Amino acid sequence: MINNIVQKTLLFDFYGQMLTDKQRDIVELYYADDLSLSEISEHIGISRQGVYDTLKRAETTLEEYEARLGLVDRFLRHKSILAKVSNMLDEIINAEHHDISDIKNKIKSIKSFIDRLE
Amino acid sequence: MINNIVQKTLLFDFYGQMLTDKQRDIVELYYADDLSLSEISEHIGISRQGVYDTLKRAETTLEEYEARLGLVDRFLRHKSILAKVSNMLDEIINAEHHDISDIKNKIKSIKSFIDRLE
Repeated sequence: MINNIVQKTLLFDFYGQMLTDKQRDIVELYYADDLSLSEISEHIGISRQGVYDTLKRAETTLEEYEARLGLVDRFLRHKSILAKVSNMLDEIINAEHHDISDIKNKIKSIKSFIDRLE
Repeated sequence: MINNIVQKTLLFDFYGQMLTDKQRDIVELYYADDLSLSEISEHIGISRQGVYDTLKRAETTLEEYEARLGLVDRFLRHKSILAKVSNMLDEIINAEHHDISDIKNKIKSIKSFIDRLE
């Protein structure tokens, strides 16, 4: 299960450009700069409730984009396959004993992972 | 330079869910089913000009999403790197002479490509 902050950060990375400037500023202050709602409220001069509402609306917008386009989900599936491929490559690099036919089989298996990424 | 139809198909694959049902239908009939504007006009019962306008509006919308989010561009960059990785893996699989240290160097190079994909 993916961490909630990581998920929100990914949603922002993928779809942040669809938010208004104000929404984007507040999301960045909250998630990237780790400011509290009150700190953001002081920083940009709107009420704490206003900050909260803007943040929630921005999150809803980002989630709606993901529900339609599913690009974060796709990214995470690719990432997981690429991590597996990277580990398989490491195993070959770090192996102490080498058997060519074994290495070739491993490479064929790695290639099938790569070729299946859409 | 990427083919124009491929580019439009990718834009539709990535952002098609942001179009209206009518726009999506017309884009599919035109690009996937390869119908002419007149054929689409007869098929769905709006004027040829109406089909043309809807198609152009849909294309503009898709291009605007790409201009903001750049996800097709990112996809194409990844695809090109993965094709290169796939070829490098093939070279190892198909090599007639095998030198372990040479294979390991190739695999390290492949791994660096994989690890650099964001």
